[in-house]
Amino acid sequence: MAATSSEGEGKPIRCKAAVARRPGESLVIEEIMVAPPMPREVRIRIICSSICHIDLTFSDMQDPPGFFPRILGHEAIGVVESVGKNVTEVTKGDVVIPIFLPDCGECIDCKSTKSNLCTNFPFKVSPWMPRHENTRFTDLNGEIIHHFMYVSSFSEYTVVTFANVTKIDPEIPPNGACLLSCGIGAGVGAAWRTAGVEPGSTVAIFGLGSIGLAVAEGARLCGATKIIGVDVNPEKFEVGKKFGLTDFVHAGECGSKPVSQVITEMTDGGADYCFECVGMASLVQDAYASCRKGWGKTIVLGLDKPGSRISLSCSEVLHGGKTIQGNLFGGLKPKSHVSILLKRYMDKELQLDEFVTHEVSFKDINKAFDLLRNGQCLRCMIWMDN
Amino acid sequence: MAATSSEGEGKPIRCKAAVARRPGESLVIEEIMVAPPMPREVRIRIICSSICHIDLTFSDMQDPPGFFPRILGHEAIGVVESVGKNVTEVTKGDVVIPIFLPDCGECIDCKSTKSNLCTNFPFKVSPWMPRHENTRFTDLNGEIIHHFMYVSSFSEYTVVTFANVTKIDPEIPPNGACLLSCGIGAGVGAAWRTAGVEPGSTVAIFGLGSIGLAVAEGARLCGATKIIGVDVNPEKFEVGKKFGLTDFVHAGECGSKPVSQVITEMTDGGADYCFECVGMASLVQDAYASCRKGWGKTIVLGLDKPGSRISLSCSEVLHGGKTIQGNLFGGLKPKSHVSILLKRYMDKELQLDEFVTHEVSFKDINKAFDLLRNGQCLRCMIWMDN
Repeated sequence: MAATSSEGEGKPIRCKAAVARRPGESLVIEEIMVAPPMPREVRIRIICSSICHIDLTFSDMQDPPGFFPRILGHEAIGVVESVGKNVTEVTKGDVVIPIFLPDCGECIDCKSTKSNLCTNFPFKVSPWMPRHENTRFTDLNGEIIHHFMYVSSFSEYTVVTFANVTKIDPEIPPNGACLLSCGIGAGVGAAWRTAGVEPGSTVAIFGLGSIGLAVAEGARLCGATKIIGVDVNPEKFEVGKKFGLTDFVHAGECGSKPVSQVITEMTDGGADYCFECVGMASLVQDAYASCRKGWGKTIVLGLDKPGSRISLSCSEVLHGGKTIQGNLFGGLKPKSHVSILLKRYMDKELQLDEFVTHEVSFKDINKAFDLLRNGQCLRCMIWMDN
Repeated sequence: MAATSSEGEGKPIRCKAAVARRPGESLVIEEIMVAPPMPREVRIRIICSSICHIDLTFSDMQDPPGFFPRILGHEAIGVVESVGKNVTEVTKGDVVIPIFLPDCGECIDCKSTKSNLCTNFPFKVSPWMPRHENTRFTDLNGEIIHHFMYVSSFSEYTVVTFANVTKIDPEIPPNGACLLSCGIGAGVGAAWRTAGVEPGSTVAIFGLGSIGLAVAEGARLCGATKIIGVDVNPEKFEVGKKFGLTDFVHAGECGSKPVSQVITEMTDGGADYCFECVGMASLVQDAYASCRKGWGKTIVLGLDKPGSRISLSCSEVLHGGKTIQGNLFGGLKPKSHVSILLKRYMDKELQLDEFVTHEVSFKDINKAFDLLRNGQCLRCMIWMDN
């Protein structure tokens, strides 16, 4: 194993990475150099990564925030190989999940129960390390390789800040833990933390991709009794039943009725909680119209293309008493809430393994991209060979 | 007194009313007939009314929902003259405030702690009684006169449903109680109930009319420590200091900085709670931009012209974790929350009398309209002669 042979604290590591060299092209597995961690940074040996739509979007993106060459990947689990100065949170050998959303534990946001948006390390989709406009990756010609979402897990080794690692119990199966580090965690968190779904409540989920299904799973976990999926593909309903979906609305097949009217009728006035999981501004408006007057809450999880806007009728906003709320990572605080969800996973209350529909080895990473691109997988797990 | 001479249960009452005969014209004080209350209705002798911008807007409105002839007025206090069948909540002689927002006490919303939007009597700006397309007012030629906001208090007598009256302690000074029945109640309620302003929090209020000042008063009552008013008129700051304003932003005089940037700097990251009290969709967007990432909440109180829309950036919604919420009557439940606020008024914690800047007798009601139209009053109290 070339990778581990060069492992060593304080020294660069030569290892394999899947590099996005050019927009829209397959990743190239090549040898790269991973610098040692700087102060308050952690170098991690990746065990496995999963792949999410954001990786796909950025692998195709011609212009900034698309950057090339870049190491994508941001849902992962690994083992700490070494730590830089002033890292007290983790030590060599700890099992960790790197999480894109920083949690420094020190700032007003990290100390608050109301926010998960770290002030000391504000999240941006940057091609660099947080707070430094530089990288820890170079190719064998010495050229820099860009980072992605502060994680860059499509590499045997990566470097992240202390704020971007959450230590976990090494007994937890890697694939379950890996999944909570972005999309699935965000979906479950959006139901649990952002919406605060209550037992007996009604939920409508717009878009039944992995994130929408994770919202269903979160809503099921919180005790919602009616969980309605809305999608253009009725096959999603069968998949969704595993994650608590009780009802389905076939968007585009509701005749002359708008989807919001169908949901309003199914829920006797509107769903208590609506979730937009596609990333279409117009669907946010449908979700808002589908949630109940008086207390309905619409949670935005999907991101539409840059510049797109959500438009709401002033009168509907004023008179409906409804709430609309955004969130990153489902409102989860990476260092406290993820452990709670992992406990529920270990207690067999939260289903995570069911999201893993495919597994490939690292050398076949481009197959994982194809599966996702063709809508054939929920989550495809990419296992490192080391 | 012509009015009381014809008072009598079960019979029509002939009394004086200020009738809006034609859009944009002065009200005409004339004698009208007020029918006896139908089952579950209450006939009230009005003690005093105040006037709010909504009265002004509808007195000028050429097309539906403007209707003529009509009896405007919806902020009032009165005494129950008689009740229809099946009214158990109030009895003859009770002092009540008629409130435009119904609270039947029986439906899922009225029983819920989360909503103040009665399902049995859904609020609409209708020219009729709730749930019946008819009126209790006729002129001396037998022509119908339309209702307004289920209250129509610019009349010596009016008829409302049981759901639209809140019984109060007769010891409470009438002007204070009257003020809580719409705009001032809505402002205080928006801070207390809709936003849930907490001690030590920061607040920004866009528009320092009566409602904006009432939000300030509500925020002061809830213990906010920084209460910033935003207005184009700096004189409003002096008035607002009485109601707890601590800071002022002179909109239009911020140089090249947008107001949101000024507020973000003043609050070290954005106000915890922002309130739009003007009724301009673009200001809702400014308020949203001014509230704090991670937990900021924007409350919409103003209503822009029909058809206007609020436009929010998808990316800002998703990444900011902020909330935007509408409400009617500040989220107050007319039959429970108003009494709590009245107790705080009697305990000299909540200031209400300070909103009454002018008083006129009923015959001079058009002076009250002029004062409001010219921006010369906060609230003008109109006292009945009886």
